[in-house]
Amino acid sequence: MRHFADRLHDAIRRKGNAVLVGIDPRPKQFPPGLLDRFPADSGGYVAALRAFAREVIDIVAPFVPAVKFQSAFFEQHGPDGIEALHDTMAHARQLDLIVIFDGKRNDIGPTAEAYAEAYLEPSAWSADAITVNPYLGSDGILPFIEVAKREGKGVYPLVRTSNPSAREFQDLVADGLPLYRHVARKVAEWGKLSVGEGGYSAVGAVVGATYPAELAELRADLPKTPFLIPGYGAQGGGAGDVAAAFDAEGLGGLINNSRGILYAYEKPAYRERFGPVWERAIEQAVIDMAADLAAHKAGPASA
Amino acid sequence: MRHFADRLHDAIRRKGNAVLVGIDPRPKQFPPGLLDRFPADSGGYVAALRAFAREVIDIVAPFVPAVKFQSAFFEQHGPDGIEALHDTMAHARQLDLIVIFDGKRNDIGPTAEAYAEAYLEPSAWSADAITVNPYLGSDGILPFIEVAKREGKGVYPLVRTSNPSAREFQDLVADGLPLYRHVARKVAEWGKLSVGEGGYSAVGAVVGATYPAELAELRADLPKTPFLIPGYGAQGGGAGDVAAAFDAEGLGGLINNSRGILYAYEKPAYRERFGPVWERAIEQAVIDMAADLAAHKAGPASA
Repeated sequence: MRHFADRLHDAIRRKGNAVLVGIDPRPKQFPPGLLDRFPADSGGYVAALRAFAREVIDIVAPFVPAVKFQSAFFEQHGPDGIEALHDTMAHARQLDLIVIFDGKRNDIGPTAEAYAEAYLEPSAWSADAITVNPYLGSDGILPFIEVAKREGKGVYPLVRTSNPSAREFQDLVADGLPLYRHVARKVAEWGKLSVGEGGYSAVGAVVGATYPAELAELRADLPKTPFLIPGYGAQGGGAGDVAAAFDAEGLGGLINNSRGILYAYEKPAYRERFGPVWERAIEQAVIDMAADLAAHKAGPASA
Repeated sequence: MRHFADRLHDAIRRKGNAVLVGIDPRPKQFPPGLLDRFPADSGGYVAALRAFAREVIDIVAPFVPAVKFQSAFFEQHGPDGIEALHDTMAHARQLDLIVIFDGKRNDIGPTAEAYAEAYLEPSAWSADAITVNPYLGSDGILPFIEVAKREGKGVYPLVRTSNPSAREFQDLVADGLPLYRHVARKVAEWGKLSVGEGGYSAVGAVVGATYPAELAELRADLPKTPFLIPGYGAQGGGAGDVAAAFDAEGLGGLINNSRGILYAYEKPAYRERFGPVWERAIEQAVIDMAADLAAHKAGPASA
């Protein structure tokens, strides 16, 4: 398998944007009428979840390079929810999307190895990349990198998250640097273990769009690290806030949007235009986001 | 439902020890002959995994208060592995064991809420407690505590882990205190949100047995926090190293042992005594561990 960063950048060049659609099927936010199509005797909620996730993927696949599955919203429904996750991830792969499993897994030694094999090897889940939590240090990250290297996959450690309380621990200053920059230093070190033809690493970094100053600073620390950037849209980050993440060719980052796309039909502007046709609202929201990013040079200029 | 800490301590008093058996069914370490019982057409590896986990639980249930499921070793086998996890957790609950889901989940807001509902509510997984990673701060922990409070369940944030590289980030010193003690301060604060009749909180802490000085120090910081202590046995922690975790009544901690019990049959002493009967090796390892802890006042004196 070709190196993860090269495959990712091929996909971004091909689609002309760095939009990452977050598949976060939240209970109680399904489009009106969707649940009615799935009565309890046909599997009810989980059947609706599965159908919704699959339809979203079909709608966005022609436009975007990558999708990110938020595992929590599937795990919430027990083994059936997880089977829906598994099948939907396989469907996204078949449509040539880069598939990121957002599970923020973390453990040590053989346990980390088990997670890495679970999500990155072709046998069980076969995502292209996984998000991981760095709190346990290198013991918790290196097993993921090992499998990623072997399989042409990627690993995204959390560095600076997009939520308000991120600062409680991530901003604590030790030896003159906040914790998240110590994590970034380790990411730079880990990143050297697997570099693609384009110079980017298989080890990425999750960096929130809600802290633009930190984003620019981290890009300076990590010039060849693929960034996964949550926080655009619903969490308050704008396209201008994330432009610093991209290199001259518009590569190096993926900008995640979950709620702003999946539930676009809830926004007055789309509702007015498309009425109950939530599928069209999703499509238009993806097109609009790509144009917004291009206008701010947050990604390739070709969008 | 009665408060988690009270239910936990009832179970520890009833069984007379604080042994937590870690259900970590590792590939390639199954007892000899087990896999032969499950040919490929009967589900093969996952059927063996399911049978092994269930048999271990049946063997240890009369002796110990609690079991901890390491999710990675089930997730590794895709949806079938997860169904085995689900059914085995339900089996452990039926045997009146305290069931801890060791998934180290972490996310924010509605996503953390989805994880909390998934694992702590009665509908999907219904564990008695879950391990969580604190890197994202309060936004990532409070949703778990909310559900735990409502359902009589527990939440164990990682504070100081048992692995060698734990020190890379957890020992960074900010404002005169290492990161893990900043986390401990937050655990103390979060812990006030749900206190049981016995004075202990529903918010616990994962603290490795491999750092006895830190363990004693953290017990002083967190006098009424239930500790989950990994690192006994295979990772090098001894019963003397964990005694500081317990109060005068022998309450306040659970000492995890996974490999040392599940694969006791690999140890020469048990192999000599029980030959290929791995079930007896497991039983004896649990009895021996309880006696070792009692001899060092690591838990109730009645064992």
